[in-house]
Amino acid sequence: MTEISKYGEFGLIKHLTKDLKTVQPSTQKSIGDDCAVMNFGKGQKASDVRVLMTTDMLLEGIHFNLEYVPLKHLGYKAAVVNFSDIYAMNGTPTQITVSLGISKRFSVEDIEALYGGIRLACERYNVDLVGGDTCASMTGLTISITCLGVANDKDIVYRNGAKLNDLICVSGNLGTAYMGLQLLERERLANAEQPDFSGKEYLLERQLKPEARRDILEALHKAGVKPTAMMDVSDGLSSELLHICTQSNVGCCVYEDKLPIDYEAAALAEEMNLNIVTCALNGGEDYELLFTCSLDDYEKLIPIEDLYIIGHITKPEYGCNLIGRNGEELALKAQGWNAFEQ
Amino acid sequence: MTEISKYGEFGLIKHLTKDLKTVQPSTQKSIGDDCAVMNFGKGQKASDVRVLMTTDMLLEGIHFNLEYVPLKHLGYKAAVVNFSDIYAMNGTPTQITVSLGISKRFSVEDIEALYGGIRLACERYNVDLVGGDTCASMTGLTISITCLGVANDKDIVYRNGAKLNDLICVSGNLGTAYMGLQLLERERLANAEQPDFSGKEYLLERQLKPEARRDILEALHKAGVKPTAMMDVSDGLSSELLHICTQSNVGCCVYEDKLPIDYEAAALAEEMNLNIVTCALNGGEDYELLFTCSLDDYEKLIPIEDLYIIGHITKPEYGCNLIGRNGEELALKAQGWNAFEQ
Repeated sequence: MTEISKYGEFGLIKHLTKDLKTVQPSTQKSIGDDCAVMNFGKGQKASDVRVLMTTDMLLEGIHFNLEYVPLKHLGYKAAVVNFSDIYAMNGTPTQITVSLGISKRFSVEDIEALYGGIRLACERYNVDLVGGDTCASMTGLTISITCLGVANDKDIVYRNGAKLNDLICVSGNLGTAYMGLQLLERERLANAEQPDFSGKEYLLERQLKPEARRDILEALHKAGVKPTAMMDVSDGLSSELLHICTQSNVGCCVYEDKLPIDYEAAALAEEMNLNIVTCALNGGEDYELLFTCSLDDYEKLIPIEDLYIIGHITKPEYGCNLIGRNGEELALKAQGWNAFEQ
Repeated sequence: MTEISKYGEFGLIKHLTKDLKTVQPSTQKSIGDDCAVMNFGKGQKASDVRVLMTTDMLLEGIHFNLEYVPLKHLGYKAAVVNFSDIYAMNGTPTQITVSLGISKRFSVEDIEALYGGIRLACERYNVDLVGGDTCASMTGLTISITCLGVANDKDIVYRNGAKLNDLICVSGNLGTAYMGLQLLERERLANAEQPDFSGKEYLLERQLKPEARRDILEALHKAGVKPTAMMDVSDGLSSELLHICTQSNVGCCVYEDKLPIDYEAAALAEEMNLNIVTCALNGGEDYELLFTCSLDDYEKLIPIEDLYIIGHITKPEYGCNLIGRNGEELALKAQGWNAFEQ
C-alpha cells in the first residue's frame, strides 16, 4: 500500500488522471488549467461562446479554522476563489452550485451566515446560485462549489501560451494573505481575549475576504492587451510560475526587488522573524492574477494601476529563477505545502 | 439558535434559497429541478442547445459505509447518480468534475480503486472527466461530483409539466436498492465471516452499482413519446411524486398492485418482517425514472420493456393518494429520512 503523502496533491492528481481520454466533441480543454473549457455550440467559430467550469472543495480543519474565520467570510471566500479561476481564463463567472456537508454542531443561523456570504459574493460578481446539495455530515463542515463561466473562444487565456521575452506581470501584492493567516494563528495561540489587530486590518482582509481581480481584466481589456498565459495565485507565486513555464515549455526570470510587497505584511514578517520574500513566493491564497504579455504591450501595461512587471520569460534551458537583490540567482521551487503529510 | 433537524434537508434548502433571484440572462432554470438549465447561446430558438448542471455530495458515515461498499463501486455509483439527474431532464451527460477529500487512512491504491469506478462509469456513459479538486481531509472520505449535460430546449422535461389525466409511469422496480441495503446491514451486524448473499446478488447490485436509465429515454424517443414531467427516484417514490404534483399543481392516484416490485426484494422483505410496499414508496436510491405522459401516448408506452404505468394525474384537490389492494385510499407522505436528526 502506498501512502498518499508520497505523491502530494499535484502528484496524486497527475497519477490518477494520466492517460485520461476525452470522447465528447464538446470538451475543448480538460484537466490541467484553471478551468475546463467546453464548446456546446455546433459551430466552431472563434467568436463563439465557450463554457468554463471549475470546482473547489473546502474542508474544516484543512482549509479553514472556525475559531477565527467567521462563517459569512468563509462563504464569501469559498465563492470568490471559484470566480477567480474563471477570471484566470479571461472569462466571466455566471453560475455556481453549492454543496454543503453540515454536522450537528451547526445551527440554522450558522448556515444562514455561511449562505449569506455566498449570496453576497454572488451579488457583487453578478453570479447566479442555481443549485446544490445540502446534507448532514458526521464531523465538521464541508463546502464544495462548482462555478460555470463564459468567454469567447478567441479571448480565452490558457497557461501554455507564454513566449520567449514575454513580460511577467502580477496584480496587487504577494504574501499578504499568508501574513494575515500568521497573524490570526499568533493571536489564537496567545489565546488573547482581545486579539491585537490594530493597524493590521488589511492583512486580515486579504486572508478572510479576498476579492477576485475582475478589475485587472477590465483594465487590460480597455488597454487592448490580451495576456499570452495566465493563472491566479492560489498556491503561491513560485508554484504558479512553474506551472506556466512547464506548460509553455519556457523558462523565467523574476526579480526580488520587483515583487510587490505590502508594507504592513513586511513589517509583521520582520516582527515575526519571517522572510517576507519567501512568504511572497510560497504563501498562497493571494488570488491575484499572474500573467505573461508580449513585450510589445509594455507601454500599454505601464499606466494600469496595481499591476507590476516582475520579470520576463526565457528559454527553457535557463530554468525558472529568482534574481536576488545582490544579483544572485535562486532556482524557484514549488514549496507549497503537502497537506497529506500533516 | 435553531437546530437544523427542525427543518430537515428539503426544508433547510428551501429556507436558505427562498427569495433567491437570478441576474444572468443565461440562467433559464435555477434551483428546484433535477438540474439547473443554462442558455449560453445568443439565439433563443427552441432547437438551441441548453446546458444542464447537477451536483451531488457523498459523505462517509452518512451516504456510505466502507465496511461493505467497495471503493470501486462507490466511485461508479457517485458518478452514475449524477448522470441519472441529467437523464431525468431528458438530457445527455457530457462532463463531470470530481472533488475528493481524503483522510490519511486511505492509500493511493484505495483512491485508484475509487477513481477506477468513476472512470468506468464515464466510459460506459460517454462522459468526460474534465477537472476537480483533491485534498486531504481530517476524517473520512468526501466525494463531490458536478455533472454537465446537454439537451435541445424543446426536449427538456421539467418537474412541473404534469397535466390532468396524464399517465404516471416508472421504470424498473422500486424498493430493491433499499432491500439491498437492509441485506448488507443485516450481514454486517451478524458479523459473519462469510455473509450469505446467495440468490440475492441482484439486490446487492441495485444498492452497490445502480445504473442510470438511459435505455428508457432511448425507448421513449424511439416511440415518439415526450414525457410531460419527469424526475429520477432517488429519495423514494412518494417523495418524488409529491415533488411533481406540487410543482405541477395537480394531484395523483397510484395503485398498490401496479407498483413494480422485484421478487427477490419481496422475499427478503417478508423474511425480515418489512412491508415491501412501504419500502417501494420510501426506500430511495432506486435511480429509476418516474414520469408522466399524455393519455394519448398509452398505445406507444405499452410495448416498452421494463416500463410500468402505476397511476394517473388528478385534480389538485384530490391530493396524492395510493389505492390499496382492497380499494382503500392512503395519502402519500414524503417519509424519506432526516439525516440531521440522527
